[in-house]
Amino acid sequence: MRSRPLMSLRLSTAHTQDIGAGPRGSRVTFPITGGSFEGERLRGKVLPSGDDWTLKRPDGVVELDLRITLETDDGALIHMTFEGVRDDGPPGGSYFRTVSRFETANAKYSFLNRLLAVGSGQIRADGPLHVIEEIL
Amino acid sequence: MRSRPLMSLRLSTAHTQDIGAGPRGSRVTFPITGGSFEGERLRGKVLPSGDDWTLKRPDGVVELDLRITLETDDGALIHMTFEGVRDDGPPGGSYFRTVSRFETANAKYSFLNRLLAVGSGQIRADGPLHVIEEIL
Amino acid sequence: MRSRPLMSLRLSTAHTQDIGAGPRGSRVTFPITGGSFEGERLRGKVLPSGDDWTLKRPDGVVELDLRITLETDDGALIHMTFEGVRDDGPPGGSYFRTVSRFETANAKYSFLNRLLAVGSGQIRADGPLHVIEEIL
Amino acid sequence: MRSRPLMSLRLSTAHTQDIGAGPRGSRVTFPITGGSFEGERLRGKVLPSGDDWTLKRPDGVVELDLRITLETDDGALIHMTFEGVRDDGPPGGSYFRTVSRFETANAKYSFLNRLLAVGSGQIRADGPLHVIEEIL
Repeated sequence: MRSRPLMSLRLSTAHTQDIGAGPRGSRVTFPITGGSFEGERLRGKVLPSGDDWTLKRPDGVVELDLRITLETDDGALIHMTFEGVRDDGPPGGSYFRTVSRFETANAKYSFLNRLLAVGSGQIRADGPLHVIEEIL
Repeated sequence: MRSRPLMSLRLSTAHTQDIGAGPRGSRVTFPITGGSFEGERLRGKVLPSGDDWTLKRPDGVVELDLRITLETDDGALIHMTFEGVRDDGPPGGSYFRTVSRFETANAKYSFLNRLLAVGSGQIRADGPLHVIEEIL
Repeated sequence: MRSRPLMSLRLSTAHTQDIGAGPRGSRVTFPITGGSFEGERLRGKVLPSGDDWTLKRPDGVVELDLRITLETDDGALIHMTFEGVRDDGPPGGSYFRTVSRFETANAKYSFLNRLLAVGSGQIRADGPLHVIEEIL
Repeated sequence: MRSRPLMSLRLSTAHTQDIGAGPRGSRVTFPITGGSFEGERLRGKVLPSGDDWTLKRPDGVVELDLRITLETDDGALIHMTFEGVRDDGPPGGSYFRTVSRFETANAKYSFLNRLLAVGSGQIRADGPLHVIEEIL
């Protein structure tokens, strides 16, 4: 499979909302308070609001479900979502991957409307970082 | 079909994020900044963060998709979602209905984990109001 | 909440596909092989294909997720989905409720595109029966 | 991004169910009647039942949403879903990509429960073929 860099996405989060062990697993919501994204074809900031709803499944894998709004440096708004999995404990290392989708009305960025993008996530001291590539 | 009152939910929203006419319809995101809910069995406040993602479909009907976190007056957190439809223009009046789901880890409120609830929405001067009933 | 009868839906199913205890719970898929629906405003048959994907959550409640195609007696096709919950073991009786959505291109039935409908399900000797009402 | 071959998936389909131009776009359902999958780590057949629900969006891109059950040659059942996009008309060629998820209770195949997989689809004379790779 071939891919092409799309962006690096940094997120700032507020205190988590720990719902706890509910009917489907253990749920923690991460409010997104801002952030930035940077790539060759688009760059800008993450608007406040938006969240990442995470659910630790019975098998220990965490499912992510994020929805945010991006604003490019030339003023376009982009609705971005990703779903993903994070498994901290497998033999040989962790696995933290996402699949992103985008919606925009801005013609310059309409290429985003038709692509799937795969991201690799990591938790850094200053917050989550996702390196996202377009699937070619 | 029988139902039983569950709560009245009032939401406060920040400036909308108007994504515009995208690939699936016209998308507007309403950031939720707070609110309150009140019923015989539960009451409290809506935590900041959370959003209502709305999409005006090609046929003019608006689909709603909300996710928020409730905090009861005795400190339990409840993950709440609803999906709904809003049709302002039909002959004979508008139609604004939602279906809610809940997740909580708190035993006192665990009855919420297994029920479907139907809501009737309206836009008031001070923000959206949803009257929500448990489906019996 | 007020409602109005929409239809009674009878489903025929093939042998279940028992996936077993997976990462999210215990999954059983019910292939739909046919059926019929009958109401004042629409009636006809359920086309073969379509399934109900069910997942027993860690808390014992079963989540339903059905997708089928209806064909009315005058030849219109309707895409129907429902999500629901089934809880066989609560004190005081079982709870088996669904929320349906519809999509059709046929003008006669376009009223279905903008409504939410609530159903009450039961398992009979000859298969599942869902009594479905439009939420007014 | 690195990937590793997972399987080639061939699907057999029955006559499509053409719902037509509905509220969200033009909907066509492809009933799945069988098929096969083949990879180094798993192989077997696709059980009858299951469908691919497709929706042509207002912008002309087709969204896919498939759910099927796989049976491996040693008797394990796997619940498989994919979502994808198909764009036949862009300058320079078509784009037909999917993202798959899996659920199984069988320990031998439990590696599937925690991975994301990306597929490249094509329509051949004998039906759809999807070449699917695990995202590493």
